[in-house]
Amino acid sequence: MSRTRTAQLMDGAGLARRVVEEASDRAAEVTRRSGATPCLATVLVGEDPASVTYVRMKRARCAKAGIESRLVSLPAATTTAELVETLRSLSRDTGVHGILLQHPCGPHIDERAAFEAIAPEKDVDGVTMSSFGAMSFGLPGFASCTPGGIMRLLDEYDVDPAGRHAVVVGRSAILGKPVGMLLLARDATVTYCHSRTSDLAATVREADIVVAAVGRPRLIRGEDIKPGAVVIDAGYNPGNIGDVDFDTARLRARLITPVPGGVGPMTIAVLLAQTVTAATTQLGLVRG
Amino acid sequence: MSRTRTAQLMDGAGLARRVVEEASDRAAEVTRRSGATPCLATVLVGEDPASVTYVRMKRARCAKAGIESRLVSLPAATTTAELVETLRSLSRDTGVHGILLQHPCGPHIDERAAFEAIAPEKDVDGVTMSSFGAMSFGLPGFASCTPGGIMRLLDEYDVDPAGRHAVVVGRSAILGKPVGMLLLARDATVTYCHSRTSDLAATVREADIVVAAVGRPRLIRGEDIKPGAVVIDAGYNPGNIGDVDFDTARLRARLITPVPGGVGPMTIAVLLAQTVTAATTQLGLVRG
Repeated sequence: MSRTRTAQLMDGAGLARRVVEEASDRAAEVTRRSGATPCLATVLVGEDPASVTYVRMKRARCAKAGIESRLVSLPAATTTAELVETLRSLSRDTGVHGILLQHPCGPHIDERAAFEAIAPEKDVDGVTMSSFGAMSFGLPGFASCTPGGIMRLLDEYDVDPAGRHAVVVGRSAILGKPVGMLLLARDATVTYCHSRTSDLAATVREADIVVAAVGRPRLIRGEDIKPGAVVIDAGYNPGNIGDVDFDTARLRARLITPVPGGVGPMTIAVLLAQTVTAATTQLGLVRG
Repeated sequence: MSRTRTAQLMDGAGLARRVVEEASDRAAEVTRRSGATPCLATVLVGEDPASVTYVRMKRARCAKAGIESRLVSLPAATTTAELVETLRSLSRDTGVHGILLQHPCGPHIDERAAFEAIAPEKDVDGVTMSSFGAMSFGLPGFASCTPGGIMRLLDEYDVDPAGRHAVVVGRSAILGKPVGMLLLARDATVTYCHSRTSDLAATVREADIVVAAVGRPRLIRGEDIKPGAVVIDAGYNPGNIGDVDFDTARLRARLITPVPGGVGPMTIAVLLAQTVTAATTQLGLVRG
């Protein structure tokens, strides 16, 4: 009997597979119709092991999905100006449809300046201010990949944010802020919490939808989850530990993303899907 | 004795005068040092009486502050493409330092497309996505004028948003959304409410800072104001009625903006101040 009270798991891994399959089919269609293959350029500064691993993984996924991937590896000593010039050059390159700047780039790089050198129509990672504006104002544009993946997960499990109270814990430029804006665009009442929030637990207790995106292991405890809430754990912490204490939260939530296998796989899936969409638009196969 | 329990009024009219005086001094300094006068171009589409009045008022205030104002009056039948071309041309015109598109422009105009034709460095009304991104990410850029004015008012009355719960009622692109982002950048916990919020009164009751920006007369009732809260009424309704029921809210708030004379005067003041700042930067009088 007690098992029936635990939350249903939101299977991000499974959904991501389907999203990638669909992207792969669309990529093949692009190639068939235009002769060109959708191409994602990935820019890597330095040789941070985690970044190298992420990039390798993304390139392998591209290859499997029929998306060309071009790796631009720059030395760790690359300046912001050089990085900006590289990104501008890729923005002009008609053979490249999507651009991903692997970040963090290192403390000597002005990442915002670098992001803004990416043409909005190639910003398949959704990091430019233009993409953020589009997400905020409900305009066409690419979502940041993790927030976009979270919205796909909610849709997949028929969670309509309209009129629900969504509490977003974390306010980063690529995760907390945009996911809040996407939820607001879908008519949720949205609260942004962060390190300066005076009573995080009390705020989380009022949430119909919790999005944890702060990178602090098990910060959100099960006792603070409102019974029946939807819990999205976008936390990345060493040892595959999320921002939510999964074992206790699942006893109160209605739906919950596991870590790993929840939000994580959606990020690359959305990246690939958006790359194919960018290619489709840029190659004139649909009206942009 | 009962008078001591009513809120202190936040004197936007007085603060706005000081902001304009300071802008006027800076404008004179720009003229003295560069020989050029800060210039605001105002673009008006059609002859909506309210818009004509606003534009006339803004031009009079410019003149008084030593800011040149250039009026570009376009016929009501102007297309989006024509309006965009006008705004692009003003963006290129080195004699113009700030651009204001009086809106709403009418239902046949794509206002977002028009706004985006304004160069970010001349967007002294803070309406472009680039300005919104800057407000959201704490980067240099111009604030939307009313949100910028609200932040000035909070500062003037030593209200530090850090760690406080700010509830923003309304989510428009030029008011609700940016003021929430500015409060978040100042470390408030921020909740966005709107027409789809399921229990507005309950949410408002938890607010240390209430920003009403929805345009519904007396929507926020005094009984829903937390005792000691700061109440910012940015509502515009006919008959000088705010979104807050002032007479009851002032009995519970610690600080409250009157309508008129609260937020309203700050909007033009910030517009003028930002125009002078834009001129200062564009004329090379400070590092941009």
